[in-house]
Amino acid sequence: MRQKIILREVGLRDGLQIHPTFMATDHKLAWVAAEAAAGISEIEVTSYVPPKLIPQFADAAEVTTGSLLIPNLLVAALIPNLRGAQRGIELGVQKLNFVMSVSHTHNLKNVRREPDESVADFKSIVALIKEQPVGKRPIITGGLSTALGCSYEGRVAVSAVVKRAVQLVQAGADELVVADTVGYADPIQVRDVFQAVLKEVGHVPVAAHFHDTRGTGLANVSAALDCGVTRFDASLAGLGGCPFAPGASGNIVMEDLCFMLDSMGYDTGVDLGQLVQVREIIAQALPDVAMQGAIARAGLPHNYQTAAQRRAA
Amino acid sequence: MRQKIILREVGLRDGLQIHPTFMATDHKLAWVAAEAAAGISEIEVTSYVPPKLIPQFADAAEVTTGSLLIPNLLVAALIPNLRGAQRGIELGVQKLNFVMSVSHTHNLKNVRREPDESVADFKSIVALIKEQPVGKRPIITGGLSTALGCSYEGRVAVSAVVKRAVQLVQAGADELVVADTVGYADPIQVRDVFQAVLKEVGHVPVAAHFHDTRGTGLANVSAALDCGVTRFDASLAGLGGCPFAPGASGNIVMEDLCFMLDSMGYDTGVDLGQLVQVREIIAQALPDVAMQGAIARAGLPHNYQTAAQRRAA
Repeated sequence: MRQKIILREVGLRDGLQIHPTFMATDHKLAWVAAEAAAGISEIEVTSYVPPKLIPQFADAAEVTTGSLLIPNLLVAALIPNLRGAQRGIELGVQKLNFVMSVSHTHNLKNVRREPDESVADFKSIVALIKEQPVGKRPIITGGLSTALGCSYEGRVAVSAVVKRAVQLVQAGADELVVADTVGYADPIQVRDVFQAVLKEVGHVPVAAHFHDTRGTGLANVSAALDCGVTRFDASLAGLGGCPFAPGASGNIVMEDLCFMLDSMGYDTGVDLGQLVQVREIIAQALPDVAMQGAIARAGLPHNYQTAAQRRAA
Repeated sequence: MRQKIILREVGLRDGLQIHPTFMATDHKLAWVAAEAAAGISEIEVTSYVPPKLIPQFADAAEVTTGSLLIPNLLVAALIPNLRGAQRGIELGVQKLNFVMSVSHTHNLKNVRREPDESVADFKSIVALIKEQPVGKRPIITGGLSTALGCSYEGRVAVSAVVKRAVQLVQAGADELVVADTVGYADPIQVRDVFQAVLKEVGHVPVAAHFHDTRGTGLANVSAALDCGVTRFDASLAGLGGCPFAPGASGNIVMEDLCFMLDSMGYDTGVDLGQLVQVREIIAQALPDVAMQGAIARAGLPHNYQTAAQRRAA
């Protein structure tokens, strides 16, 4: 059990986008640098959306440029459409995370597109990327939101997830992200969805993005691990939440995810003590934000040996 | 997937024992009655320990007698030793939950006994029970604390858990409880321990008792389900916690456990909406207690159909 797990921080995007206070650019970059130094190898640092829509991302250019100077880090950003992809390519970002919703209603509300139009957008984005010189082509990820439930439509059919996954891969996605955007999933549902997706498009990496809104986040991670998933999104201190569920926790907590995986013997590449200390940057930058996290409160088990220490012993 | 899961409330014992304020007997009985009415079929209502040691259980007799009047409920109580068993039998309690620690140090600190002495105590308790007329014999459960880690000794060997499990079953336990007393476990460890225990003593029911101290509680439930475990301890609002980890959550949250199991299609027999309302009794009785729980904050998914509704559809 030395399997490498790739953890991707999404708090700077998924966490901050619903927070009412602007986090200063310097604080964002300090967060990115500190988490990269703790061993997180991929961070979604911002979103290329119009600042009129989400003022939190008014500094998307500065955050991207600053993050690209940080060593040992793959710098990713979310894009909702072709214009976002153009901005990302101009800025030299290394990975573009395109997102569409499997649920029809959620896609209309979130990006004002029919899902079929979003698939067409994705094809245009892939074409744009292929026009770039080989060394300047970002990785392109196809993200499927509301793949495990939708706050407008309720349950989402597994076949609908598979259909969109196949379309995005056929269109040229280097990677997929299957997301439980509103925290509806349970472990059996996770197995059903991920097994079905992996059966059809398992030749590209499929990442999992879970929210802990209803307490099932780490149970769903464990179920996805059973399916062979090795890439997970999470956010430091569980930043995020849902505008329709006050007080509800948001993304799964990065520190708790790291602890569980390390305890299970997986190789996360993360220094857990150093990771927990990064919380201080958030606490100082956003004193009003609700910070989740069990391991930060409870500490490691007595005489805890990391997976690396156990392998060395 | 219609498997019946038996959920056992332990908050009145495991939750209250570390809380500094005495919960009034009437409030305890209101809690027991309301949770039984919501469909929880077994509740550990108190502990037969000297009130000098834990003043919270000074009303153990009244709580037991009152609980026995509540319909559709199996009334259980914790016992640390033979004297506790004698009290329970006199009171007519229906189930005695004996507890010992697999970890040597924890057993010495908790019950001032060598583990081998505790096994001998358990034999005396079984002998006492067998002396009772058939209709008056309580069910006797053998509980193994610190089976997934100890706050004094760290990791606990799987072989040590199996050894004690076999000893308690050979001594006459009707049921076992394997407990992650301090919230150290991860899903792989859970599988290792429960598979090993079930392989040796799977002819008696083996329940799981998890704490959510480090965020892995429901992930561990899912792993235990995979092993075939169908009995779980939990506490309403996650009451409990650890005196050595301020702010850390305690037992897994009963409401969140019920939601996850129901969403997975298991038959819990619980009315989730009614269960969430029982939290009000705790909030009024103990305004200073920290109440956990994701489903109580976030609510059910949109258009959620219970397992029973899905089966009927």
